[in-house]
Formats: sequence, C-alpha cells, structure tokens
Amino acid sequence: MALIVKKFGGSSVANAERVFNVANKIVEDYKKGNDVIVVVSAQGDTTDDLIDKAKEINPDGASKREMDMLLSAGEQISVALLAMAIEKLGCPVKSLLGWQAGFETDSHYGMARIKRINTERLQKETDKKNIVIVAGFQGINKYDDITTLGRGGSDTSAVAIAAAMRADLCQIYTDVDGVYTADPRKVPNAVKMDEISYDEMLELAAMGAQVLNNRSVEMAKKYNVELEVLSSLEVKPGTIVKEKVKMERTLIKGVAKDTNVTRISIIGLEDTPGIAFKIFNRLAQAKVNVDIILQSVGRDNTKDITFTVPSDQSKQAIEAIKELKDTLDYKDISTDESVAKISIVGAGMESHPGVASKMFEALYSAGINIQMISTSEIKISVLIDEKYADNAVSAVHDAFIA
Amino acid sequence: MALIVKKFGGSSVANAERVFNVANKIVEDYKKGNDVIVVVSAQGDTTDDLIDKAKEINPDGASKREMDMLLSAGEQISVALLAMAIEKLGCPVKSLLGWQAGFETDSHYGMARIKRINTERLQKETDKKNIVIVAGFQGINKYDDITTLGRGGSDTSAVAIAAAMRADLCQIYTDVDGVYTADPRKVPNAVKMDEISYDEMLELAAMGAQVLNNRSVEMAKKYNVELEVLSSLEVKPGTIVKEKVKMERTLIKGVAKDTNVTRISIIGLEDTPGIAFKIFNRLAQAKVNVDIILQSVGRDNTKDITFTVPSDQSKQAIEAIKELKDTLDYKDISTDESVAKISIVGAGMESHPGVASKMFEALYSAGINIQMISTSEIKISVLIDEKYADNAVSAVHDAFIA
Repeated sequence: MALIVKKFGGSSVANAERVFNVANKIVEDYKKGNDVIVVVSAQGDTTDDLIDKAKEINPDGASKREMDMLLSAGEQISVALLAMAIEKLGCPVKSLLGWQAGFETDSHYGMARIKRINTERLQKETDKKNIVIVAGFQGINKYDDITTLGRGGSDTSAVAIAAAMRADLCQIYTDVDGVYTADPRKVPNAVKMDEISYDEMLELAAMGAQVLNNRSVEMAKKYNVELEVLSSLEVKPGTIVKEKVKMERTLIKGVAKDTNVTRISIIGLEDTPGIAFKIFNRLAQAKVNVDIILQSVGRDNTKDITFTVPSDQSKQAIEAIKELKDTLDYKDISTDESVAKISIVGAGMESHPGVASKMFEALYSAGINIQMISTSEIKISVLIDEKYADNAVSAVHDAFIA
Repeated sequence: MALIVKKFGGSSVANAERVFNVANKIVEDYKKGNDVIVVVSAQGDTTDDLIDKAKEINPDGASKREMDMLLSAGEQISVALLAMAIEKLGCPVKSLLGWQAGFETDSHYGMARIKRINTERLQKETDKKNIVIVAGFQGINKYDDITTLGRGGSDTSAVAIAAAMRADLCQIYTDVDGVYTADPRKVPNAVKMDEISYDEMLELAAMGAQVLNNRSVEMAKKYNVELEVLSSLEVKPGTIVKEKVKMERTLIKGVAKDTNVTRISIIGLEDTPGIAFKIFNRLAQAKVNVDIILQSVGRDNTKDITFTVPSDQSKQAIEAIKELKDTLDYKDISTDESVAKISIVGAGMESHPGVASKMFEALYSAGINIQMISTSEIKISVLIDEKYADNAVSAVHDAFIA
C-alpha cells in the first residue's frame, strides 16, 4: 500500500469520455489498496475561453487578482466532474479547491509561489479512505484571496502535495508516454528514456522540452519526490525522474528546442564598471528570466550587451531597461523574436570536451549559423535563426544519439 | 452617503454589453459617495450548461456536494468579469466568493441555509472604499465545503448581506420594472405598485409571482431590510418592499399564478387520530413544502387527505409517504400535476368578508371549477385545472383591480 499522487492535464479531462478514462486509472490504483490524491487542470479549452471572456471586458488587461479569480473557476469545474465520475464508479471521493487542500502562496497573482501546504484536510480525507481530487494551479494568499501558480502550475501543485504528504510516487500524465531524447514528432530517431535525473530533466524542461514544467522538477529535486512521466491514454510505464539514475549508453540525454525566445541587444553602452549589474538587477526586480548573456565590444569605446528572455517577457524587459534611462547611457535597444534556442543535455558533459565541438560541427554541416552560445555543467545551448530550428534538432540529435 | 446592496440576476450579466450596463449602474451610485456591495448570479445559461456537464458524467445524479462544487464556479466567473468591467470604468473593486464574503451555512448541499455572515472582510473592503462584488447563491459549511442556497439563492444572499451590514437599501434588479398586481405579460390591466408590505410580497412570492424569492422576503421582513425591486435595463424607480406601506386604493395587491404545483391524494386512510400528524411530520422531515391541505370523508369509514406540493418535490413526498406504509393504512395514492394555484393577496383581507366570494364569482363566471381552497389573513388561494390558469388570473384581476 502506497500513497500515490497523480496529475492529469486539461486535455486528459477534455470531455466526459476522457474524464472516465482518467477516473478508471484512479480507481484501479485505489482498488489495489493505495491512497490516491489526484491533481487536475481545467478541462481542454476552458482556460482559453475564460481568458477570451476577460479580453472582451477589458482588452488592455484586467487586474491579475481578478484574472486569478476568473481562471481558478476552470479547475473547480474539472475537479467536480472528475469526482462525479469516480462516484459513478462506486468509490468514495472528495474534490477540493486549492484553498481547501491547504495551498498557501505568496501574493504574486498569476505567478504565485507556494509557501506551504497545510496538509490537515488532505490527511483527514485520505485517512477516511477517500480518493481526493485537488484543483491544480491555485492557492490562496494571506488575505484569503485566490492566486494561480502560472504556466505548468498543476505539475507544481502535484509535486508540492507529493512532497508535503511524503507520497511514494508522483505520476504526471501527459500526451506523450515519457521523456524522449528529442521531440518524437520532429525527430524520428528520438528514444524514450526509462530514467533521467532531476538535473538533466531540469535542463530539458528549462529549455523548452515541454514535458514537465521546470518549477515542478526543481521542487521534486528539493524534496526528493520520485516522478513518473507517463501517457494518460496508453497503459505502459513512462520515464522515472529521480536523483540517481542507472548509467545509460548515451552521454547526451536529449536535444531540445525553444522558440519562445527573444534576443534583446542594448547597443552602445558606456564602458564603466557595474553596468551589467545595473541591467540584470533591474531585470530580476521586474521578474524577467534572463537566459543566455553575451557582452561584446562596440564602436567608439562602448560595449553591447545581448541576452535572451522568454518572448512573453520581452515587453517587460524592455520597459525595465527604459526605466533605467536616467542612470544608464546607451544608444539603442534592438530585439529579435525570430530566434530559437537548441540545447543538448547530459550529465558529465564537462568531462567530455569533444561534446561542444561535435554539436557545433553538426550545425555547421547542416549550414546553420550560431548566434550565441551558453554552456553549463550539463548542457550546451546555442541560439540560431528560428527557421532552422527543426533542422538543427535533427542534425544534433543524429550526431549524438541515433 | 449610504450603504446600498444591489443584486443582479444571471440574465443581467449574460454578455459583455450587459456586464457593462450593470457596471455603469454600480459606478453611478458609487460616484455619488455611496458604499456599494453587489451580489451577482452566474451568467445567463452557465448554470444550465454546468448541470448538463454533470448529467453527461452521471445521469442518475451526482452527489449534492459535488454539484455545489461544480455550480458555484458559475458565480465565480461572473463576479470576476463584473469586477473587471468596474476596473475598466476606473473604480476600485474586489470580487469575493461566498466563503470570502463570510457566508456560513448549514450542510444541506443544494439548499443550504445561511447561519451567519462574518462581515469582517466585507467591512474591511467597504472601509477601503472598494466596491465589493459578491458571488451569490453560495457559502461554506463547517467542514469548509462549498454549499449552494438553492433556487433564488442570490436574492437571499443580497438580503442577508444587507441585513448583516445594516444597509440602507437592498435593490433587487430583475427583468421587470417592479411588482405588479398580476403578471403584466398575461394581464394587460396589471398595475405596477409603488410600495408593498413584506407580508403581501411574501404571499405573492410564495405563490408563484417569481419576482422575488420568498426566502429572501422572509429574511428582509425578519431583519427589516428595505427592498426595491427594479429593472436592470431601464432607469426608473421600482417597487419598494417594506414593513409599513402607505394606503393604496386597492385592497387586493396582486393576483398570482403558480403552475409548479402537484396535487397528491392519499385515499382510503383508516380514520384514527394522529393520521394527519404522522403524514405531515414525515413530509416535514423529508423537507417537502406542503401547501394547501384538504381532508375529506371517504368510503367505508375511511378518509382521504389531499395536499399540494411544489412539483419538483412530489417524488420525495410520495417516497416519504410510502416509507410510512408499515404504520399507515391506506388504499392508494394519486397525483395530478396538471393543476395551478391562483391566489389573491392583500393586507386586511380578513376584515372584508366579500373578497372570497367575489373571487369565486369571477371564476364561476369564467366557467372555471375550483378544486381546493385555502385562505390566510392576507391571501386566498384556489387550485384549478392548469389549462385555465391564465384565464383565471385575468378574470380575478379584472374583478378586483382593473
């Protein structure tokens, strides 16, 4: 007997048939004697439909507090429907909203961080042998106002519950059947992995391999929650994500592509100390996630700083920099959204010096120009023209894995 | 400066245009310096759509707890959208769900009663000069589970807030512009009243004049909350409902029709003492609202008891009686749904003995047979064949009012 946390995304519960498919998976594990806590997202297009309603009322953007109030209704609908399906299958069940399940967050509406989970209610319901269905993606702040956790928030909700309840396993059901060495829809030779370490998964997640949200993997690593990424439609084992994994043949664990990237260049900066600190400190305050950074010498004793940010944060980033205009002397800012980041990930990369050059060679052979390079202990990322992204993934994947 | 509570139904906020219409009414009163608390129902068909989703999952009927979880999402969407519209109009606003607004109820899911309102949050927000938008129809029980208040629950929510916050006025916006002496769509001579007493309104509400829900009027009477029933589409005064009203010309305040009535007859009851107690005590336990009761002598030393209940409670009523079979001796139960109740309401009726006979005469002249009669201090109701209901209302209305 174990405590299993299962998370199902919106497409897994998009209609009544799929709701029952999910309910059956839950009931199956429950009937084996396990305690089961389920985290579920809003059904299919519900969130998008609600966003459309908000845009109709206030196209310039409603307050984030009211957006969170609005969007959290989506999971409320899905938890109730899933609970009804489980009732229909004859098992005891209770649905709980974020606040009922004890999710306490900060007040950063739309992107709240979980501060703690008060597990009292969850414990009470599992003690009573109820299956518990928890609304993902949401919590409350200290004012008792509803907050949402932002993109991939339901994964984070599931891992947070697994950590707080010391669950034996946290299963993340998706539309793929595990973690692949590259996107299997794009790269025919992509291989499914049985196991992957938190760090490797983290790099893949951070880099646009959208199987798992990186916040949820970070949290799983921190609290040592064993994850399984598996298919909500098929019945077969997925990929286990944990601290120590058994050695596998390939050094490189995956090739990922991220097209949600914008390159921002600040041109003609005065060449004085502290410039980089000033810029990136301001960007951090504005909650912009800066990724690759490049500094180069410009004309006339100036320098240029170029960096990448997620495309949906580029507006914020530019505003933040423009606010520095009084204390920061520069000639121009330019942006380019038509870029893509291609990354390879694998533990122990730093002790294999040939890896980077092999990647660059593969791209050169495919005729793809590299704009920026970034490396860490377990990954190498390059920025290229967006139109070559898929070609680049295939070329790099085939050089290392196929 | 006053504290005004306003309640808007689902059709008043059915689309973006109507949401702004409502937002403008709210902002107008707020800009005059008033504190404004608004109660709003789910948009248009939202509740019906959610019920359809539940039926698709479990046609035999999901648990009431999960239904309440599901349905309360409807108001969550409408409060957020209305708040966004008010933000767009430039006024400070906070939306609150039932539990955030302090609605504590019993655990009778689907038909919960408000036990108390903890006004702390409402007070805090009005003190900060925020317009407050409260989700109607919902609260939480002692387990922190969401409950809904049943039919007309948003009216009750509004009156409860007005009572708890000692509001100066509680305005109930509807699709009619006030309380009429009869349904103006059916009776061309119907007259709009400027004022009506709680008791008179209560009788009209209980009797199918669906302008106001009777629970909300009862509560308004108990806490002496002055109500105004007015149109959400037009700008003109409605009908004030309060304790003492100024004398008006007509003794009879209104004629109402209720077709949501089923007549149940228990035939061939053993003629022993305590029979009526046994039956109606059991029905009360089953939460069935019994209205007109008639007891008559049957064949062979037995008696028949006939009574009316709301049609949607007839199944419960019959089950409750069948459960008595062991201790209650009867021959048969018959039901008739094709009946309607026609009522006239007016204070001081008991001191005008001619009223009842005038009503009966009007029905007789129109060729309508009376099946049952019930009278109280301020109303006279008759049960007739449903197909004559509209004719009966016209005939009675014209006899008294036109």
